[in-house]
Amino acid sequence: MYNSSICSFMFSTNILQPRMVIARLSCTLKTHQNVRIGHCTKVPRNVNMEKLQHGYLFPEFVHGLSTATGYKGYGPEQGEKALRKAISVTFYKDLGIKPSEVFVSDGAQCDITRLQLLMGPNLKIAVQDPSFPAYIDSSVIIGQAGKFVDKAGKYKNIEYMTCGPQSDFFPDLPTISRTELIFFNSPNNPTGHAATRKQLEQLVDFAKVNGSIIIFDSAYSAYITDDSPKSIYEIPGAREVAIEVSSFSKFAGFTGVRLGWTVVPEELLYSNGFPVVHDFNRIMCTCFNGASNIAQAGGLACLSPEGLRAMQTLVDYYMENARILVDALTSLGLTVYGGKNAPYVWVHFPGSKSWNVFAEILEKTHIITVPGSGFGPGGEEYIRISAFGQRDSIIEASKRLKYLIYQEQN
Amino acid sequence: MYNSSICSFMFSTNILQPRMVIARLSCTLKTHQNVRIGHCTKVPRNVNMEKLQHGYLFPEFVHGLSTATGYKGYGPEQGEKALRKAISVTFYKDLGIKPSEVFVSDGAQCDITRLQLLMGPNLKIAVQDPSFPAYIDSSVIIGQAGKFVDKAGKYKNIEYMTCGPQSDFFPDLPTISRTELIFFNSPNNPTGHAATRKQLEQLVDFAKVNGSIIIFDSAYSAYITDDSPKSIYEIPGAREVAIEVSSFSKFAGFTGVRLGWTVVPEELLYSNGFPVVHDFNRIMCTCFNGASNIAQAGGLACLSPEGLRAMQTLVDYYMENARILVDALTSLGLTVYGGKNAPYVWVHFPGSKSWNVFAEILEKTHIITVPGSGFGPGGEEYIRISAFGQRDSIIEASKRLKYLIYQEQN
Repeated sequence: MYNSSICSFMFSTNILQPRMVIARLSCTLKTHQNVRIGHCTKVPRNVNMEKLQHGYLFPEFVHGLSTATGYKGYGPEQGEKALRKAISVTFYKDLGIKPSEVFVSDGAQCDITRLQLLMGPNLKIAVQDPSFPAYIDSSVIIGQAGKFVDKAGKYKNIEYMTCGPQSDFFPDLPTISRTELIFFNSPNNPTGHAATRKQLEQLVDFAKVNGSIIIFDSAYSAYITDDSPKSIYEIPGAREVAIEVSSFSKFAGFTGVRLGWTVVPEELLYSNGFPVVHDFNRIMCTCFNGASNIAQAGGLACLSPEGLRAMQTLVDYYMENARILVDALTSLGLTVYGGKNAPYVWVHFPGSKSWNVFAEILEKTHIITVPGSGFGPGGEEYIRISAFGQRDSIIEASKRLKYLIYQEQN
Repeated sequence: MYNSSICSFMFSTNILQPRMVIARLSCTLKTHQNVRIGHCTKVPRNVNMEKLQHGYLFPEFVHGLSTATGYKGYGPEQGEKALRKAISVTFYKDLGIKPSEVFVSDGAQCDITRLQLLMGPNLKIAVQDPSFPAYIDSSVIIGQAGKFVDKAGKYKNIEYMTCGPQSDFFPDLPTISRTELIFFNSPNNPTGHAATRKQLEQLVDFAKVNGSIIIFDSAYSAYITDDSPKSIYEIPGAREVAIEVSSFSKFAGFTGVRLGWTVVPEELLYSNGFPVVHDFNRIMCTCFNGASNIAQAGGLACLSPEGLRAMQTLVDYYMENARILVDALTSLGLTVYGGKNAPYVWVHFPGSKSWNVFAEILEKTHIITVPGSGFGPGGEEYIRISAFGQRDSIIEASKRLKYLIYQEQN
């Protein structure tokens, strides 16, 4: 099976064929001299992926026609070559990410499910608590989770990593049990916290020691204003333990256009030494058929010098919105997080239920917030306020919130 | 679990809430007086879907804000309302398909995987042999299939329904064992055969008796020139046993634009009486995020009177290509199928291996065909020729094929 997979791999596409041979040796012989590809995670390859015969028919025979070397054998499922290159140059400059490691998609949420499909049901995930719901829900759908325990507000067999202010929104790693996958979102939706370099170094070490794979969601990285890493690959060793998922939605106002990408480095290996990138490529060819060519053309335009300036202007606009909201809420003595490296403001209402705060704000100010508990039990007592809006709406919302909270306090 | 699912269902979206209650009764009480919703398939609900708590956060709380009745609670994940309505009116006129039963997607291939995700690993599928590879490959990835048996060229635990000329490209149903899912593609890729009304009536009866769900792929229905059904819902009773997947790619030259749809009728019920449409809606909200809004606008334009005329012109153009190819090949005494209700021509080379025929044609004429065995063991000895091309290329290809085959014969 393993060998036939190798063959089909080399036939269906020739990416990292030579590296793979080395990778197999380095894992088979358990030599770790080659730092770039010497590390095998302890994540077993999905047995369902091992069963799959050959490459997906169409890219496979098209490759059979290709006399060129390099990545000519790729079908369009992985994205237009020009866009893959532009993403690698724009977002991963000096981080050594090759265009062949970038897979253009119809968005981060869809890629999260495809990554769960890739990994299969027989493993365990860890998530930040609170976190974006798609990580947990897709895990339940694929069959990784146990029953939901109402009292705890958690599923069994999912590791909830509490990320509250008491630990600078980073998990207390020594208390976290080992899982095959670790979903980590930075800047975090909903808390707005961007993990520091030191925190991410700890996370990468933790994954390496445990043989885990980090699925790093950097969809909001463009909003980072301090020196927090914008990509997990800024951390040494991350190429051997991390997949990165990102999106144009929040950078370029592409919400609804559906364009994102996922990076799977060549050095990321299953416990048997088989490169994860090969199976992910197979998933993209079989279960996906490429992002809309129109959306991809738009994405390419965004990465032109003019497009990048426009994106920065958009980001600055929303971050000014965030500043306005934070100022308004802090001026009332509320404890407010986020809004500095993310367009989300995370407001604490000690002793209150998120849904009650949400309902009261909605009823009395007609402002839509998101109840924090919707992001996991760790979000209870909080609400998330989004800075994605027109300036005048933000100013009006700030006024209404000030008035409401002032009334409550007096 | 069941009740909480119902609640979350009614909370997250109120589609078919009243029907569902009736459906539960009709199944619970095992009364089959109500023909429309009295039938329960024998397909158990995916236990992973049963585990899922509530609706997906965002559509759910947005619905909480909605004071309107009807489908206002829907997020955009299911597609723009105007497009869902246009699809139901254009393709399902008089077939009773409601806009709420139409889910706009980024294409049929992606929907096939989402349907596998919906159904889960613990069931068995049947496929036409030969058939489009995505059905089998997605089944293997989700974990429904057994090992691949090289000698047979088949996976264990998948029912291959031989569909060759000896049985008018329709399975010999009495010899087919019962499966939970039946993938059926008509007009078929690669054979080009469109199932007759009588054949589809047999298929629907077969599914109903077995408690199976048909996943009917009608991506090429616009190419049907005779009175073969263009939708499975033309067959009485199909609403209780069939899901239909379709696409704009082949109707409108949208290949790469990524736009399709899936129809899940309200009357389609799991063995416990729970409506499949609810879980599919949940999958679309959690694992997908809507088709590109640009592609959807294009799809809506295609369904205007002008757009429909343009689509028909395109279809006629490719069908004339098919006629040219069929004439050229038959004039040489070859046995040719398809090309009448589909843009694919299916050519028989008795005693030859598909890949050898493919290679010889490629080498000697530089024409790209597809080896039939790539569509399953039933495709051996055949090649598929596509009529999707410019007229002059088709004429040139016909000339070269004539010359090659003439040489071979003399």
